[in-house]
Amino acid sequence: MIVVMKVGSPEPEIARICEDLAGWGLNPEKIVGKHKVVIGLVGETAALDPLQIQEISPWIEEVLRVEKPYKRASREYRHGEPSDVVVQTPNGPVHFGEQQPISVVAGPCSVENESMIIETAKRVKAAGAQFLRGGAFKPRTSPYAFQGHGESALALLQAAKDATGLGIITELMDAADLDALAEVADVIQIGARNMQNFSLLKRVGAQGKPILLKRGMAATIEDWLMAAEYILAAGNPNVILCERGIRTFDSKYTRNTLDLSCIPVLRALTHLPIMIDPSHGTGRWEYVPAMARAAIAAGADSLMIEVHPNPAKALSDGPQSLTPERFDLLMQELAVFGQATGRWLPQVEMAVV
Amino acid sequence: MIVVMKVGSPEPEIARICEDLAGWGLNPEKIVGKHKVVIGLVGETAALDPLQIQEISPWIEEVLRVEKPYKRASREYRHGEPSDVVVQTPNGPVHFGEQQPISVVAGPCSVENESMIIETAKRVKAAGAQFLRGGAFKPRTSPYAFQGHGESALALLQAAKDATGLGIITELMDAADLDALAEVADVIQIGARNMQNFSLLKRVGAQGKPILLKRGMAATIEDWLMAAEYILAAGNPNVILCERGIRTFDSKYTRNTLDLSCIPVLRALTHLPIMIDPSHGTGRWEYVPAMARAAIAAGADSLMIEVHPNPAKALSDGPQSLTPERFDLLMQELAVFGQATGRWLPQVEMAVV
Amino acid sequence: MIVVMKVGSPEPEIARICEDLAGWGLNPEKIVGKHKVVIGLVGETAALDPLQIQEISPWIEEVLRVEKPYKRASREYRHGEPSDVVVQTPNGPVHFGEQQPISVVAGPCSVENESMIIETAKRVKAAGAQFLRGGAFKPRTSPYAFQGHGESALALLQAAKDATGLGIITELMDAADLDALAEVADVIQIGARNMQNFSLLKRVGAQGKPILLKRGMAATIEDWLMAAEYILAAGNPNVILCERGIRTFDSKYTRNTLDLSCIPVLRALTHLPIMIDPSHGTGRWEYVPAMARAAIAAGADSLMIEVHPNPAKALSDGPQSLTPERFDLLMQELAVFGQATGRWLPQVEMAVV
Amino acid sequence: MIVVMKVGSPEPEIARICEDLAGWGLNPEKIVGKHKVVIGLVGETAALDPLQIQEISPWIEEVLRVEKPYKRASREYRHGEPSDVVVQTPNGPVHFGEQQPISVVAGPCSVENESMIIETAKRVKAAGAQFLRGGAFKPRTSPYAFQGHGESALALLQAAKDATGLGIITELMDAADLDALAEVADVIQIGARNMQNFSLLKRVGAQGKPILLKRGMAATIEDWLMAAEYILAAGNPNVILCERGIRTFDSKYTRNTLDLSCIPVLRALTHLPIMIDPSHGTGRWEYVPAMARAAIAAGADSLMIEVHPNPAKALSDGPQSLTPERFDLLMQELAVFGQATGRWLPQVEMAVV
Repeated sequence: MIVVMKVGSPEPEIARICEDLAGWGLNPEKIVGKHKVVIGLVGETAALDPLQIQEISPWIEEVLRVEKPYKRASREYRHGEPSDVVVQTPNGPVHFGEQQPISVVAGPCSVENESMIIETAKRVKAAGAQFLRGGAFKPRTSPYAFQGHGESALALLQAAKDATGLGIITELMDAADLDALAEVADVIQIGARNMQNFSLLKRVGAQGKPILLKRGMAATIEDWLMAAEYILAAGNPNVILCERGIRTFDSKYTRNTLDLSCIPVLRALTHLPIMIDPSHGTGRWEYVPAMARAAIAAGADSLMIEVHPNPAKALSDGPQSLTPERFDLLMQELAVFGQATGRWLPQVEMAVV
Repeated sequence: MIVVMKVGSPEPEIARICEDLAGWGLNPEKIVGKHKVVIGLVGETAALDPLQIQEISPWIEEVLRVEKPYKRASREYRHGEPSDVVVQTPNGPVHFGEQQPISVVAGPCSVENESMIIETAKRVKAAGAQFLRGGAFKPRTSPYAFQGHGESALALLQAAKDATGLGIITELMDAADLDALAEVADVIQIGARNMQNFSLLKRVGAQGKPILLKRGMAATIEDWLMAAEYILAAGNPNVILCERGIRTFDSKYTRNTLDLSCIPVLRALTHLPIMIDPSHGTGRWEYVPAMARAAIAAGADSLMIEVHPNPAKALSDGPQSLTPERFDLLMQELAVFGQATGRWLPQVEMAVV
Repeated sequence: MIVVMKVGSPEPEIARICEDLAGWGLNPEKIVGKHKVVIGLVGETAALDPLQIQEISPWIEEVLRVEKPYKRASREYRHGEPSDVVVQTPNGPVHFGEQQPISVVAGPCSVENESMIIETAKRVKAAGAQFLRGGAFKPRTSPYAFQGHGESALALLQAAKDATGLGIITELMDAADLDALAEVADVIQIGARNMQNFSLLKRVGAQGKPILLKRGMAATIEDWLMAAEYILAAGNPNVILCERGIRTFDSKYTRNTLDLSCIPVLRALTHLPIMIDPSHGTGRWEYVPAMARAAIAAGADSLMIEVHPNPAKALSDGPQSLTPERFDLLMQELAVFGQATGRWLPQVEMAVV
Repeated sequence: MIVVMKVGSPEPEIARICEDLAGWGLNPEKIVGKHKVVIGLVGETAALDPLQIQEISPWIEEVLRVEKPYKRASREYRHGEPSDVVVQTPNGPVHFGEQQPISVVAGPCSVENESMIIETAKRVKAAGAQFLRGGAFKPRTSPYAFQGHGESALALLQAAKDATGLGIITELMDAADLDALAEVADVIQIGARNMQNFSLLKRVGAQGKPILLKRGMAATIEDWLMAAEYILAAGNPNVILCERGIRTFDSKYTRNTLDLSCIPVLRALTHLPIMIDPSHGTGRWEYVPAMARAAIAAGADSLMIEVHPNPAKALSDGPQSLTPERFDLLMQELAVFGQATGRWLPQVEMAVV
């Protein structure tokens, strides 16, 4: 922490502040600049709130944090090594991580009925996906919109898993549903709207299933890593970060602004694997292929793509879903770019032939 | 709903779309413009998702909603009459609403110990506040920061209520704490980070205590009213909206950007009462008085102000808290502007003398 | 400037950096923290770019500026004293400044014809305004929209000035028009879209007329003060800052988000006078009165309000213009709040009777 | 245009509005919905401002535009065919367009001296670039920062062109410099801060050199296309659009947020070529390669990359510049992804060998 004093701060006040900070267990060092005095704080400052220090004196202009507020999520925590989040599925282990092949999660926004989810699962598996996504509990802006089929949809996801061997990713919105959901899900998704639902983060941190943590619509990279830190600090080391578009001043042509530059930024800051969701990120299926290709080229570890057998009849998010035919084509395109990165699985290539 | 067709859309395709929409129980009417054809949809369209209609045909350029997505929150729902949310407190009923006197909620960010909360309660009461705020459960960006004293803090809030007769507002983060919290709270706060925690909204909508619904950091006015609609639709008509700053590109000098223009906008759209929180809105106590005065002048029904007996030692949000002395001064200033609006309570005026 | 080194930075590299910085004429001081080393730079660092220092070594994590990048615009530059920008008008001097009465600028978006501008001028003068605004050159998003009557409109502004004695504020878009415009204008406006047109800023800084500098749509407070610094550094000390709404994620109900918290923030940072434009800030006349009252309560030094005799027929920005009748009412309302601040001119009060 | 009436609008008022609009030369058609009446406007509405129509009656709730406000920039204007902007350079014609090979523009932020610009030009040519960028006139946030060497830098750009045969792109900030600049530049850049400097847009539209139009920091896609429309409408059909990052709530780790989804969006809306500038887009050279690869994968027609022989000593924007060595490596990486799109020039491939 660096405490910046206002121009003209009286010497006795600076001395008083240093004394006060020493009382907090810190070791203050004063630097007298040409115009300003700054005080460097040596010691355990990660848990301190800069704003609280600022309150010590009206002569403090600013308090600057020089330590990152997250620990377990930081790249340094693993001495620079990326995490490898391994998820067991009936078809075998799937790895999420910087040094792993790119994995693909696909499926509908919500689970609608048995035949649609099983058909979709078979199609996305054939095209090369390792995971099926599908919502049982759906966060919807309107209370009058379809809220998901709930527990009965979990049974349908199990049926799709049995039929295809794919891993299952589905969203948890309420801690009360955790046990039922964890019986079916191989990865539990925390949605963008609950990224700072800290009670829920603590709960999923205290159980064993891997967590897919979507970025909140207005979450900074730091907020997002701090949300991951909640899960890690509660004991669960298996967190996958998923960018799904942030809110900006322009939402006329895309629902959100997909922030692909988070990929190299996160790579430098954290060891956690990075997934990109171009379907929510753009909100329109026409734009999904371009952004999926870009995500791979930028270094994403995984993709999440919405696929629906009949988007026009989808109970939610139809316009951003690809048909299975378009998904087949996309996977062929992605294979070309995936191979260019050296991270595309041979079996996936075979699947698309 | 208005369906806008692309330039050059073939006539048979337009006919097919109209037929399809008629199958949805709607009555489509075609308008042939100079360059474009649009289809007006007559019928019950409020529950429809424009994006789903768009999926019917690749020739559809855009689908525009002309009905508001919220009903119970709309001003029309009460035929233009504002709501009067009446809260019983030991000191008598407090009214929140456009035609009511301005009410003031004050207190610390978190409840720290018995003497501080009782002292603060006495001071803010003496200055003219009707409600005490204070967090038992605190949403904190960092898992390592103070998370609130939890249930034991609820007992301290009860003690402060007993000592002063003030109403109590405190935040609910987890449905599991609802019963304990509702025993003490007169108004239950849903924080900005949980504004779209739809499970929690449904729970608080299904019980009887009034709800203070804070605006999410990236919530549009419409998102916010839809969140209120969740509570209203679940059966609880007593919702107070609270603006606490939104996230914008500039956060160097203020923590958030306080959107005071939401006051006249909400007034036109909804019957619900409007509270402004300039403490979170700016994040710095120096800016609180200016924005509190402005909120009153813009027509706010209520203010929420952070007050702490010793901000430098506060366990959370110290820098945005006023001391009791500064709060006394602020209330005297506010009385002048409140009187200018004709909505300042005589007893409050007396209190500040 | 504070240079923050990465965890584990090698000692010789730190030594090399210090030496390198000493070569820049700076005096580096090292602070060894528990986890990190930081280097404080003593010396003339205001003109340095933190990003350039960062480039010296890959071991540098961050460079933090602790000096403000603006000088002449800073409050310290005038030893804490606010500026008093005095503008001579036929009706006498008008003062803009923190210790001056609140001044009001009113008039149409664009000058349309002689009778409308003279009629409007008379009406706004009668209601208590000191300045007439009106565009001769109009920045319009579309090349097909009305671009202003140009030079001929300047003659009409002169006629309105002759008829009423009001001061004139009008926008300069092109340096080629400066001489003609400066003959009529008492204050030259630089619009939001040209706030970082540095060539234009230098030109208006090199002449004598006071400048009204509107905040750019995505300009931070710091960007804005740096734009003012361009004018001040070029020799013109008479700059008035005007907030007119910033761009945020929500523009459904208001055209921009009026950032009133800039008032107390600017007050602390700069000596320059502060004007608020609620007409552009909200984009709808219905919301103008609430935000004008709020601006006064928050401490604005001046208001700019759009008034048009027949908004429905306005050639630009009709929906945000008040009719003269509504402006009369608004001025009566504002007088009440202006008196509450002790900054409302007696003659204005008389005018509204 | 669609006029949406408020619930309960009186029939005579609707009739009056229709009559009024008929007087504007439009043909209004009324659709009576279950809750609302809407009026479709048939006729030439592209030049109308929705806000002006709204002013006709207080019973109008909203006016929705269904025609795009731009014409010449629209994809339909060229009947779906993309533009091919051909620029003659000493090394032969370079094409910018959807059906053309990807072109690369590289060079320093500013031209510093003869040896550095010629050395850089030779290096980027050898690596496969077709264009040299370099600023003679620099828009800088601070008046105290290096403002470019001006006209003398133009001569150095000419020297670099003579030495390498590369085309030259450089920024115009002031119309007064147009003639001198156009003698050297093969493409004239309009920077982000001048994107809505409409006077400048008209000037460059009235001359013959191709224009590179950078997106403003807070410009919507529509604002940007309207700025292009200014140039096109003034007679210059050769406009290249360049995305360089937009301003969002998060600027801690990247200077701006590079909006790559503009690529598929623009492709659908306009025939103009699309360039991506990952150097300004991220502000840090470490993130440039990932975003350059992503831009190619997303379908960009061209890239602009900052390269400086010694970024630590750069007079501006050092931290976002690649060294020539890193640029060599990047071009080899890009070749792999460029080939995956089928749009990488054979000679470029040779160059990187």
